[in-house]
Amino acid sequence: MSNERSNQQLFLARVPEGISGPQDFAVREAPIPTLKEGQLLIESHYVGVDAALRLITRDSDEFLFRVRPGDMVRGSIAGRVIESNNPSFRVGEFVNGSLGVQRYAISDGAGLERCDLQLAPLGSWLGGFGVSGLTAYFAIFDACKPQPGQTILINGAAGAVGSMAGQFAKLAGAKVIGITGGPEKCKWLVDELGYDVAIDYRQKDWYQRLVEAAPDRLDFIFDNVGGDILDQSLKLIGMNGIVLMCGSTSQYTAEDMKGPANYIWLGTMRARIQGFVVFDYAHRYGEARKRMAKWIASGELKLPEHAEKGDVGDFGAVFEKLYRGANRGKMLLKLPAAGS
Amino acid sequence: MSNERSNQQLFLARVPEGISGPQDFAVREAPIPTLKEGQLLIESHYVGVDAALRLITRDSDEFLFRVRPGDMVRGSIAGRVIESNNPSFRVGEFVNGSLGVQRYAISDGAGLERCDLQLAPLGSWLGGFGVSGLTAYFAIFDACKPQPGQTILINGAAGAVGSMAGQFAKLAGAKVIGITGGPEKCKWLVDELGYDVAIDYRQKDWYQRLVEAAPDRLDFIFDNVGGDILDQSLKLIGMNGIVLMCGSTSQYTAEDMKGPANYIWLGTMRARIQGFVVFDYAHRYGEARKRMAKWIASGELKLPEHAEKGDVGDFGAVFEKLYRGANRGKMLLKLPAAGS
Repeated sequence: MSNERSNQQLFLARVPEGISGPQDFAVREAPIPTLKEGQLLIESHYVGVDAALRLITRDSDEFLFRVRPGDMVRGSIAGRVIESNNPSFRVGEFVNGSLGVQRYAISDGAGLERCDLQLAPLGSWLGGFGVSGLTAYFAIFDACKPQPGQTILINGAAGAVGSMAGQFAKLAGAKVIGITGGPEKCKWLVDELGYDVAIDYRQKDWYQRLVEAAPDRLDFIFDNVGGDILDQSLKLIGMNGIVLMCGSTSQYTAEDMKGPANYIWLGTMRARIQGFVVFDYAHRYGEARKRMAKWIASGELKLPEHAEKGDVGDFGAVFEKLYRGANRGKMLLKLPAAGS
Repeated sequence: MSNERSNQQLFLARVPEGISGPQDFAVREAPIPTLKEGQLLIESHYVGVDAALRLITRDSDEFLFRVRPGDMVRGSIAGRVIESNNPSFRVGEFVNGSLGVQRYAISDGAGLERCDLQLAPLGSWLGGFGVSGLTAYFAIFDACKPQPGQTILINGAAGAVGSMAGQFAKLAGAKVIGITGGPEKCKWLVDELGYDVAIDYRQKDWYQRLVEAAPDRLDFIFDNVGGDILDQSLKLIGMNGIVLMCGSTSQYTAEDMKGPANYIWLGTMRARIQGFVVFDYAHRYGEARKRMAKWIASGELKLPEHAEKGDVGDFGAVFEKLYRGANRGKMLLKLPAAGS
């Protein structure tokens, strides 16, 4: 069966410079080996387009993972089981996992997660209902715990994680300020996601607007971007404040990474920059999704995503769009198998 | 009585550039007003020479305090009560407080602390037995809590706070690595203060030596200096590690402050940079000093200090020596009233 189909796999063609795009990737056709005992074959419907990929393609061995030129590109996919020699998975089930950017993936089931489409559509299992949303959920409800009357700033507010974090912070009763690029995304944050204030960092007076929006300083900064936006906003961190560090996308493309000089404000303010990794909460994903499903059903929570249709070979172009800020919510590559 | 004496007060003459020194300060002679009801007059024996002064003399309104050209220089002094119209303080008592850099100070008693010379010599009340030592004490025993088998790095290890922090971390049973400038100070850290390893940052291979000294990574980084040393050492922070931020002296003299680019390691490591201010522990100073006094009596704790004799007008030269790294432990200006 398997070898009637041909796989398309994405490889890193070169070390990216600046914003990564089609020039950095190459597709290779490959036969699909016959399944061994315990294996299953998944047809990919969606590929998660994650900002963090840019970090691990840097020419540096400093990070825990690395994708080198010639390596298959790491990435999460969601799709359907189309063959199975594994008693735990039936043909027709929907699953997601970190299986690399490819049209078909073979798995032994380890690390695979079943997707219940009653709870959320398949693509959302890579986004708002997947790792992005879970990151936001535990960052807000466990690491920050904002209270009514407190103020939280979301940097990268329209992104996959930020767009969920802002909604969770509102559900917690906090005042939510978001920073994003462009007036349309600002309007979307306020009108669609319920942000109290949205600030366009492309406007020269963005910092002044932030000062005005946070007269009592910031109890929390939820940071996905790093760079100048984090640096400036650190001047407004409040007493015992938490800067939750979920990513530093602005630095992933930088030739020389920069740290936030205003970290010295942490001292006076007894504040902290806190690293955070969602995988520590893996045993609590079910609990989080139960609450999320309720809010989705009641209309209190949206799962924003931006799906671009294409083949595996279009990944690079979609990845570039992500870094150009085209997305509202999770950026996805929607493959032909997903239908129209 | 008072007006028979003439006071010497130190003023900031200009905004410092780079390392601050005599050129930035000016002494003014001033009469001493007659004491009002409730006031007392203190003759200063020691002036604490604090690195943080350089931060608040910067041409920036961003920090909570500021000393501008024409302002009297902020600073702590320790001395003897020589007149008193305040029933709480008797002539002959020793006290310390943040009364500014001057030979005689008038106080209404607010914020003054009595110095019991049975517990520690007068100068140490501005150093190892004063705010520097208390900072180290609560940072180590309360904010970090190192356990036997854990590793802590002290950046700025021979300074007023670092030299105490390393000793406390040893008393807690941790492996203690110190970074300082020059082979003499390295030898002193190991031989006199009991550091396990001391590394000279002036040597090109200092980072490699740190990697070798910390095969299990760093559970804690106690940072007083910021800049490149902090940045490099962040690459070695361990899982759930704490970077305790007690100061950033390397940045106080910098025209453009820099943040630590490697803060992105905090993410993967679930680590944090934690701001810390000792004044939050003011209600526990007594408890800390009780334990410290025991260790001093048993020879387990030293109160390192470097006292330079001089007049108020010599403050600038001593301040410069501090930034050139001449001191082991707390830098003090010892005024003529302190005797020989």
